[in-house]
Amino acid sequence: MGRFQPFHLGHLGLVKQILKDCDEIIILVTSAQFNYLEKDPFTAGERIEMIHNSLKESDVDLNKCIILTLENQFNIAIWSSYLKSMLPKFDMVYSGNDYVKMLLKDSGIEVTKPVFMDRTLYNATKIRSMIISGDDWEKLVPHAVSSFIKKINGKNRLSIINQSDTKPTEH
Amino acid sequence: MGRFQPFHLGHLGLVKQILKDCDEIIILVTSAQFNYLEKDPFTAGERIEMIHNSLKESDVDLNKCIILTLENQFNIAIWSSYLKSMLPKFDMVYSGNDYVKMLLKDSGIEVTKPVFMDRTLYNATKIRSMIISGDDWEKLVPHAVSSFIKKINGKNRLSIINQSDTKPTEH
Amino acid sequence: MGRFQPFHLGHLGLVKQILKDCDEIIILVTSAQFNYLEKDPFTAGERIEMIHNSLKESDVDLNKCIILTLENQFNIAIWSSYLKSMLPKFDMVYSGNDYVKMLLKDSGIEVTKPVFMDRTLYNATKIRSMIISGDDWEKLVPHAVSSFIKKINGKNRLSIINQSDTKPTEH
Amino acid sequence: MGRFQPFHLGHLGLVKQILKDCDEIIILVTSAQFNYLEKDPFTAGERIEMIHNSLKESDVDLNKCIILTLENQFNIAIWSSYLKSMLPKFDMVYSGNDYVKMLLKDSGIEVTKPVFMDRTLYNATKIRSMIISGDDWEKLVPHAVSSFIKKINGKNRLSIINQSDTKPTEH
Amino acid sequence: MGRFQPFHLGHLGLVKQILKDCDEIIILVTSAQFNYLEKDPFTAGERIEMIHNSLKESDVDLNKCIILTLENQFNIAIWSSYLKSMLPKFDMVYSGNDYVKMLLKDSGIEVTKPVFMDRTLYNATKIRSMIISGDDWEKLVPHAVSSFIKKINGKNRLSIINQSDTKPTEH
Amino acid sequence: MGRFQPFHLGHLGLVKQILKDCDEIIILVTSAQFNYLEKDPFTAGERIEMIHNSLKESDVDLNKCIILTLENQFNIAIWSSYLKSMLPKFDMVYSGNDYVKMLLKDSGIEVTKPVFMDRTLYNATKIRSMIISGDDWEKLVPHAVSSFIKKINGKNRLSIINQSDTKPTEH
Repeated sequence: MGRFQPFHLGHLGLVKQILKDCDEIIILVTSAQFNYLEKDPFTAGERIEMIHNSLKESDVDLNKCIILTLENQFNIAIWSSYLKSMLPKFDMVYSGNDYVKMLLKDSGIEVTKPVFMDRTLYNATKIRSMIISGDDWEKLVPHAVSSFIKKINGKNRLSIINQSDTKPTEH
Repeated sequence: MGRFQPFHLGHLGLVKQILKDCDEIIILVTSAQFNYLEKDPFTAGERIEMIHNSLKESDVDLNKCIILTLENQFNIAIWSSYLKSMLPKFDMVYSGNDYVKMLLKDSGIEVTKPVFMDRTLYNATKIRSMIISGDDWEKLVPHAVSSFIKKINGKNRLSIINQSDTKPTEH
Repeated sequence: MGRFQPFHLGHLGLVKQILKDCDEIIILVTSAQFNYLEKDPFTAGERIEMIHNSLKESDVDLNKCIILTLENQFNIAIWSSYLKSMLPKFDMVYSGNDYVKMLLKDSGIEVTKPVFMDRTLYNATKIRSMIISGDDWEKLVPHAVSSFIKKINGKNRLSIINQSDTKPTEH
Repeated sequence: MGRFQPFHLGHLGLVKQILKDCDEIIILVTSAQFNYLEKDPFTAGERIEMIHNSLKESDVDLNKCIILTLENQFNIAIWSSYLKSMLPKFDMVYSGNDYVKMLLKDSGIEVTKPVFMDRTLYNATKIRSMIISGDDWEKLVPHAVSSFIKKINGKNRLSIINQSDTKPTEH
Repeated sequence: MGRFQPFHLGHLGLVKQILKDCDEIIILVTSAQFNYLEKDPFTAGERIEMIHNSLKESDVDLNKCIILTLENQFNIAIWSSYLKSMLPKFDMVYSGNDYVKMLLKDSGIEVTKPVFMDRTLYNATKIRSMIISGDDWEKLVPHAVSSFIKKINGKNRLSIINQSDTKPTEH
Repeated sequence: MGRFQPFHLGHLGLVKQILKDCDEIIILVTSAQFNYLEKDPFTAGERIEMIHNSLKESDVDLNKCIILTLENQFNIAIWSSYLKSMLPKFDMVYSGNDYVKMLLKDSGIEVTKPVFMDRTLYNATKIRSMIISGDDWEKLVPHAVSSFIKKINGKNRLSIINQSDTKPTEH
C-alpha cells in the first residue's frame, strides 16, 4: 500500500520481491480521493494507469496483481476494518511503517517488513521536487511512469501547485 | 460497470465479448460503499474476490483486466467527472442503461450497448432470491462465485438481511 | 424557498406578491445537491438560470431579488441554524408548509403563509409528468422556463430518468 | 441499543433485567443523527434526557448506567468496529435482532437474547401512533417520558411530521 | 470568485471592470461552508449581505449580478464539473490564479486574467489584521462592508479567533 | 467540555467544583471522531472509559454525571445548535475559552468561567509528552487513567504516532 505519487523503481522492486514470496499481490493506492495537491498531485485513475503500465512493461505477471484504491478515513480506529471490507481476503500486509503495523496488529493482521531499496534515492517527495526543478528524475521511475508524466505535462501541473497559495482542502 | 451482487454468467459473457473488441477492460464495481443490504449484500472486497476468481478459472486473460471500485455520488451531474478521476483513461463505456448513457454523453464519452445474454435468466436480483429459497442458482454463476458464496455462508447472510426489519441506511 | 423543479407561474406569482409587502426577497433553491433524479431532475445551476431569466423577462425588479441555494441537511434539528448561517439577515419566511413552520418557530423566526395560486394547476410534480407525456405544460411556466427546458431537451432527460430502474442515491 | 423513539416500559424492563446479570450497562441511542422524522421524531439529546430521567425516577442505580449515542454508518461491514471505537470496553451485547447478531458475530462479540416484555404492547411505532391519535399511551412509558413529551408538545410535533409531505432526507 | 473575507474595494473594482466587458456577472463566494476561522471569519450569509449591500450603494446595476455560494471540494479533479452543476451557464471565468486556470482549462473553460487594483493594499488578509489592530481599514472596503462589520462587532470576533488556540477544524 | 486526551486531575477538580454549584453535570467529550492522532491519540470509547472509571474511584456521585460525546463540525456557525440537538437540556456551560463563549453567546447560552487548577501543570499536551519521554506523569492524572493507559500500552501508541511521518487526516 502506498500513495504512489508517483510509482517509482523502489515500489516496482517491492512488487517483484513480494511476488517471490506470495502467489498474488494487492497493490493498494491510498489517499485515493486526493489529487492536484502538493503531496498528492495525481488522481487515483492516473496512479492506477501508471502502475498498470509499469507492471505490464516489466516482467511482472499481471495475472498475479490486483490494483485497488482506498480513500483515507478520519476515524482511524476503524481503518483496518474498512480495509478488510474493501479488499479481497489477504493473508499478510507488507509495510515498513510502524504506525500502519500498530493499526493492523489489533485486528490480528500479520505485518511483514519488506527489504527496501535505497529509500533516499527512491523517494516520491524527492522525485516530485526533481520533476519541478528539471533534475534527472526519469531514471528513478519505470519508463511507463516517466512517459505518462510527460504526456500529461506533469511538470507544469506540479510547478503550478507548488507555486500556488491556493490550498483548497485547507481551512 | 455494475454492482455485481453477485457476478454471474451473464456478466462473465459480457467480459469475454468486450475483450474480443478491446485490448483491455476495466470492470468497475459500483455502489462500493454499500454492503449487508438487501440489494447490496456483499462487500466491495468480496465482489472483487468473486470477479477475480471467476476470471482466473475461466479462459480470460487477467493481463487485460483491471477490476476497480467506485462509490456512488449524490450530486449525479458530476458523476462522469468523478468516474474519469478514479479510472485510468478509457475509450468507451459498455452499457445498456439509457440513464448511464445520458449522464456520460454530455462529457463526450462514447457509450456502446453490449449484446446481453438472457437477462431474465441471468439476473442478480433473481439469483439472490434463489439463494435464499434454496433454488438451483449455482448454474447461473461461475463456479468461483458459487463456491465463494457457500464458503462465507451467503445463504444465511441473505436470509437474515431479507427477514430483518432493520434497515440501517434508511431514515 | 422551494426545490423549483421547475420554477412555474405559481412561484412567480408568489415572488410578485411578496415583493408588494417586502423591500427585498431571497429566493432559496433547496435540495441544491440533488439532480438527475425523478423528483429533482434539474441541477442547482439550471434552476437558478431558469429563475433568473423568468424574473428578468417579467416585470420583477432584480435589484430586490437574491437567488441562493441550500443543500439539505440530515440533522434536521439544526436546519434553521444552518439556514441563518447561509443567508443574509432576513425578517420573515414565507411558507405554507406546517413542517417548515414548526422547524423555524423554535428559532424565533416569523413565518407567514402566502396566498397560493391554484396549487392543483401550478404543481411541479404535475408539470414534470406533463413534460414527459407531451401535454400542454408550457402555459404553466414562465416563457423563460419553457424555452430553457426545450433548449436542454428536458423532455428527453425526464423521460429517461422516469423509465430508468437505476436509482443512484437509493440503497 | 435502540433508537428509543421513545423509551418505553419494555426498554426500562430490559435495563433492569440486564442489571441483574451485569455490573454495568451501556444504553446506546442509535440513529443519533436523525430527528424530526416520522420514525425518528426526537433528537438524540431529547432521547438521552428521557432515558436519564426514567432511570432516575425508577429504582435503577445510575452509577451502573452509561448512556451514549451512535450515528448510523453506511458501510455496514465496519459497524462493529465503529461500535468498539465509540464505546468503553464491553463484554456482551444484548439484542434480539438476528441482523445485529450477524454483524457482531464476525468480530467475536458475544450476543445474548434478552427476555422481552410483551412486544406488541410495548412497541415504539405503536406508541407514536397512539400519541398522534390521542389514545391512552401514557401507561406504556415511564412517567418521566410522558411528562417530557407533553412538556415539549410532542403530540403536535408528531402530528405535523405525520401529515407532512416534506421528507427532507429523502431523494 | 473569491472567499471575500471581507469584500473590499479591489473586489468592487473588478466587478465594475468585468461589467464593462460582460452583460452579466456571477460573483461566487467560495469556501462557503467555513466561518469563525482565522482565514474565514464571516459566514456565507454575512459575505453575501456585505457584497449585496456594497453593490447596491455603489453604481452597479444589480440586475446584471448574481451572487452565489460554493462549498470547497476535496476531490479537486472534479471541481470544474461541480462548478458547472451549481452555476447558471457562463462563458468565461475571470481569475488571476494559475491554479484555478489549470483546473478549468481541462474542462474547456476560458479563463481571463483581470487587471487587479493594488493587491498589496487591497488584500483581505491584511485588512483582517488591520481590523484586529485597529488600523485605518475602513477606507479599503466599501462603506456597506465597514458598517456591517462594525454592526456585528467584527473586531471582537476576529480578535477572539486570532487569540484562540482552539482550531475546531484542525486535527 | 473537552477533548480529554487524557482526562487529568485538573479536569477532575473542575467536575467536583461544578457539582458544588449544580445538580447535574454533562461531561462532553469533543472531537469524538478523532483518534490515533498526535493531539487525539485515544478513541472516544477509551476516553469515556477513563472518565467513568475516574469518577467512580473518586468521591463523585455518578448519579449526577452524564458523559457524552460530540463530533467536531466544520460549519462552526451552527455548532451551538448542534450542541443543543445532541445534549439533554442544560442551563449553563462552564468554559474558560473565549472562543467557545463567543460561539454560545449568540444562541443565548450562559457561559461561566470555572476556577482552573494550575494549568501549566495539569495540561494534556504536556502529559502526552511526559508519557512518551517516561517522565513522572502518573501523579497528574487519576489512578484510573494511569492504570488504563498502562493496560493498553499507551506509551507505545503515543510514541509510534509521535515518530510517524504518516498523517492520515492531513492533505
